[in-house]
Amino acid sequence: MKAIGRHIILEMWGCRNLDSVDVAERALREMVDALDVTLLDLRVYPFSPVGVTGMAIVSESHLVIHTWPEHGYAAVDVFTCGAPRDPEAAVNVLRRLFAPERIGVMEINRGQLDLPDHDLTAAASSSTPAPRHTRTPAALSA
Amino acid sequence: MKAIGRHIILEMWGCRNLDSVDVAERALREMVDALDVTLLDLRVYPFSPVGVTGMAIVSESHLVIHTWPEHGYAAVDVFTCGAPRDPEAAVNVLRRLFAPERIGVMEINRGQLDLPDHDLTAAASSSTPAPRHTRTPAALSA
Repeated sequence: MKAIGRHIILEMWGCRNLDSVDVAERALREMVDALDVTLLDLRVYPFSPVGVTGMAIVSESHLVIHTWPEHGYAAVDVFTCGAPRDPEAAVNVLRRLFAPERIGVMEINRGQLDLPDHDLTAAASSSTPAPRHTRTPAALSA
Repeated sequence: MKAIGRHIILEMWGCRNLDSVDVAERALREMVDALDVTLLDLRVYPFSPVGVTGMAIVSESHLVIHTWPEHGYAAVDVFTCGAPRDPEAAVNVLRRLFAPERIGVMEINRGQLDLPDHDLTAAASSSTPAPRHTRTPAALSA
């Protein structure tokens, strides 16, 4: 399916190194390299008493990491446009730097492009076949 | 369900004002106010030939907007922790500033907390009932 962007959502549990600004920065930079995106800006913010937030703005959108050391949990998002990126590239970096016991990965299309809009008017009045759908709209059976 | 954070994902189509750094900044600031989160940093980047990316880092995580004026499309993410926020607060701001013809809203739990881990060892060796699952692991039927 064709979409404007792809959004990889990662959930990591049982992690190490979650309270380090340096490791968060390193994770973002290494993911940027591994995913072959163009870095525009990168900032990491420490939180009190624990935790960090890191954000990388890339020309292909963004990468972000939020950590909760008290839970051993980190949330990572990788949003890119253009050519699809392999989530595994990001996962490898994250495994190496945070050593999570468990990782969940979900991938979402952002800005779906290739699903046609359904046009009831055109289908009812022309002789062309009805658009292919899994269900037939009531108007077409009249 | 209890989670560390909540992530609202918005897809907007048929929008106006997608090529304006000022409108993107305003949208972020007004969503921050509407959602009652604490703003730490806000940056908006214009892209060439069109489009903007805006990022607000808040103490409760982040808000981000990416626009593709050539498609009339904008992707918005609102990631907060602590008390759940009503997506409608963000949607109202976005409707007012971008006048989208269509908005899709999805809400995801980040860092799910209250689902217990399944412990096969405990279930097999104790007399307590097996944990409730829709499928029974093979080990428990031995």
